[in-house]
Amino acid sequence: MNKNRLEAFSDGVLAIIITIMVLELHTPDEPTWAGVAAVLPTLFTYLLSFVYVGIYWNNHHHMIHLASRVNGAILWANLHLLFWLSLFPFTTRWMDESGFQQVPVLLYGINLLCAAIAYFILERRLIAVQGRDGALAQAVGRDWKGKASPLIYLLGIALTLVQPLLGVAVFTIVALIWLVPDRRVEQFVVKAHEGGAGPGHSN
Amino acid sequence: MNKNRLEAFSDGVLAIIITIMVLELHTPDEPTWAGVAAVLPTLFTYLLSFVYVGIYWNNHHHMIHLASRVNGAILWANLHLLFWLSLFPFTTRWMDESGFQQVPVLLYGINLLCAAIAYFILERRLIAVQGRDGALAQAVGRDWKGKASPLIYLLGIALTLVQPLLGVAVFTIVALIWLVPDRRVEQFVVKAHEGGAGPGHSN
Amino acid sequence: MNKNRLEAFSDGVLAIIITIMVLELHTPDEPTWAGVAAVLPTLFTYLLSFVYVGIYWNNHHHMIHLASRVNGAILWANLHLLFWLSLFPFTTRWMDESGFQQVPVLLYGINLLCAAIAYFILERRLIAVQGRDGALAQAVGRDWKGKASPLIYLLGIALTLVQPLLGVAVFTIVALIWLVPDRRVEQFVVKAHEGGAGPGHSN
Amino acid sequence: MNKNRLEAFSDGVLAIIITIMVLELHTPDEPTWAGVAAVLPTLFTYLLSFVYVGIYWNNHHHMIHLASRVNGAILWANLHLLFWLSLFPFTTRWMDESGFQQVPVLLYGINLLCAAIAYFILERRLIAVQGRDGALAQAVGRDWKGKASPLIYLLGIALTLVQPLLGVAVFTIVALIWLVPDRRVEQFVVKAHEGGAGPGHSN
Repeated sequence: MNKNRLEAFSDGVLAIIITIMVLELHTPDEPTWAGVAAVLPTLFTYLLSFVYVGIYWNNHHHMIHLASRVNGAILWANLHLLFWLSLFPFTTRWMDESGFQQVPVLLYGINLLCAAIAYFILERRLIAVQGRDGALAQAVGRDWKGKASPLIYLLGIALTLVQPLLGVAVFTIVALIWLVPDRRVEQFVVKAHEGGAGPGHSN
Repeated sequence: MNKNRLEAFSDGVLAIIITIMVLELHTPDEPTWAGVAAVLPTLFTYLLSFVYVGIYWNNHHHMIHLASRVNGAILWANLHLLFWLSLFPFTTRWMDESGFQQVPVLLYGINLLCAAIAYFILERRLIAVQGRDGALAQAVGRDWKGKASPLIYLLGIALTLVQPLLGVAVFTIVALIWLVPDRRVEQFVVKAHEGGAGPGHSN
Repeated sequence: MNKNRLEAFSDGVLAIIITIMVLELHTPDEPTWAGVAAVLPTLFTYLLSFVYVGIYWNNHHHMIHLASRVNGAILWANLHLLFWLSLFPFTTRWMDESGFQQVPVLLYGINLLCAAIAYFILERRLIAVQGRDGALAQAVGRDWKGKASPLIYLLGIALTLVQPLLGVAVFTIVALIWLVPDRRVEQFVVKAHEGGAGPGHSN
Repeated sequence: MNKNRLEAFSDGVLAIIITIMVLELHTPDEPTWAGVAAVLPTLFTYLLSFVYVGIYWNNHHHMIHLASRVNGAILWANLHLLFWLSLFPFTTRWMDESGFQQVPVLLYGINLLCAAIAYFILERRLIAVQGRDGALAQAVGRDWKGKASPLIYLLGIALTLVQPLLGVAVFTIVALIWLVPDRRVEQFVVKAHEGGAGPGHSN
């Protein structure tokens, strides 16, 4: 079973998720700068979720690249991840419409957490197929961001119970952490590829 | 005529079907847990249809992988399947909006049944091209799930006439049956591939 | 410049066009069979446009397969075709919402005609690159459907001026003509491919 | 890290952006030619944004084709570009809904400018990886359209402050400039490819 169609389908779903959120954006009520200012929070939530889907696409890209092969369980683990990501437009819209009230922000945080857990499960499945010595297992070994993110989401959820905007701030910080380039991981990927250590050249 | 574009187009359509259903999800009226509870049936129907499209993508993936080549009739049989799958967002939405009333649930069941029949027709066409001894014919020979599903849909449709929620329960059980891994089929696929028995290596 | 990305982008756009039309489908007002009957014209227009986009995908698939290479002018001719196809959801929706009144049906027919002309232009561009002796030119030489369709659209547009439903009938008949398999063309494609006469094996 | 998935994801996002804008098109209020005339400005803005996304897809196609390889920073520079392009349906809709009032037209122009800057950043990143002597750097060296466009957008933004329709005219002219074929650039691409000077043959 080759990886190509898994990649193609995931790319398709992620491309749609990241793009249809723009359909949710309501145009300003008045054609003035005040009207624009009124939709800035909406644009901010759109940007935040855009970055999150971008992060998942980026990480998914690297992870599948390092994976050697896929099986039925992995297809379902991948669909499980896509399911939680597909809820982003829904939870994003609600958080925005409510004006960042507590329950919608909590639901957004829970959505982020579920996606992170689904990603973790997919990662484990891929490593189980490839083995502990594989390129993926080694790359993941140093993946401190992947390990820290769920914990920070939990912190964000807890802080939302105090003040929702604190939760939003935490979720924004996690996104920024991922945006900062992590040269080491990438260099490892390059080396593994050049050395032929790990990834199948099926694509 | 190669299989790649058939796969690419089908992946695209399935990715869109599975994702645009989220646009139908109405956010809760109130930013409270009671509001969330009120949309749980909606989220459940979304999940159910998500799983069904996922199942079709998964099975389609395997079936086309085992197919040797495609012709014009197969392209149309594939579009016929995609047509019924494309109605899922419509029948799902109506079933949900109506609060699981009889006619909408019946229509959902009929949609499931039509998709299953369209899948069966596509399967026959692919086997007709490849021959009875091909890898696909052999894999299908043991496909008890594929044979049982339409019968269970009929049962679900009949039970809906008694009580719609019974029908929904049956449709949910079929989805769960498919989620349970079927190791034998997959092992066959792996063996056929390794032994070079069947699938063309066109991708 | 390779054909792969042209195919991938066209597949993406066509997959989206064929699928998002389902978002336009309004669920029945009442959860009854009378409610379903009331949306049957809507479902019919959806099916008609689904078949038309399917026909274009099918023909596009064959045409690009026979093409040897693409250039900038061809990319734009392709986008021109996609533009007219992208209006299908719009003209379909209006024709349906208006209950098949004259002007909306005329616009639907004009949309079909423009798409056919755009397809013709793309075909000419591809043949110009490949030469009159190429596999595409020969396949097109016997393409009586492609030559007849625009004329029948014109007839449908003229009949719409008399009675819109006559126009809809004509547009339906063209779709049915395309659905009937044309074995000769396909056999030619197979032969050209086997004999290595024409299409580049770039994919 | 190969270019294929970057291309596939970008194609997916661009295909969705270019297509979902049609969902924004409101059907005429009355089934008459007067009704059609009333939506002509809407169709014009749709066409304008369709052409712009088409231009970006076209240019992106060429640029990535000439690129030798991608890294993490390039993936993010690409997502940055896609973000601004994803706002086109939003800014297009507002400009149209407002009847081309000043602030919405300004926002549309700013959106065009931001996309052009994001494209420039991506170009620089790709050249940085490939080197100043690479095929991309040479092709870009003569890319007067790419250099002139941001300046003309600025002019359009300035003119919008005087009269919004002047700004719209300028944005339309830029689109037309891009539609005019630039034979030299394309010939260079063909030569570079034939001579093996630049682009990796990874696809």
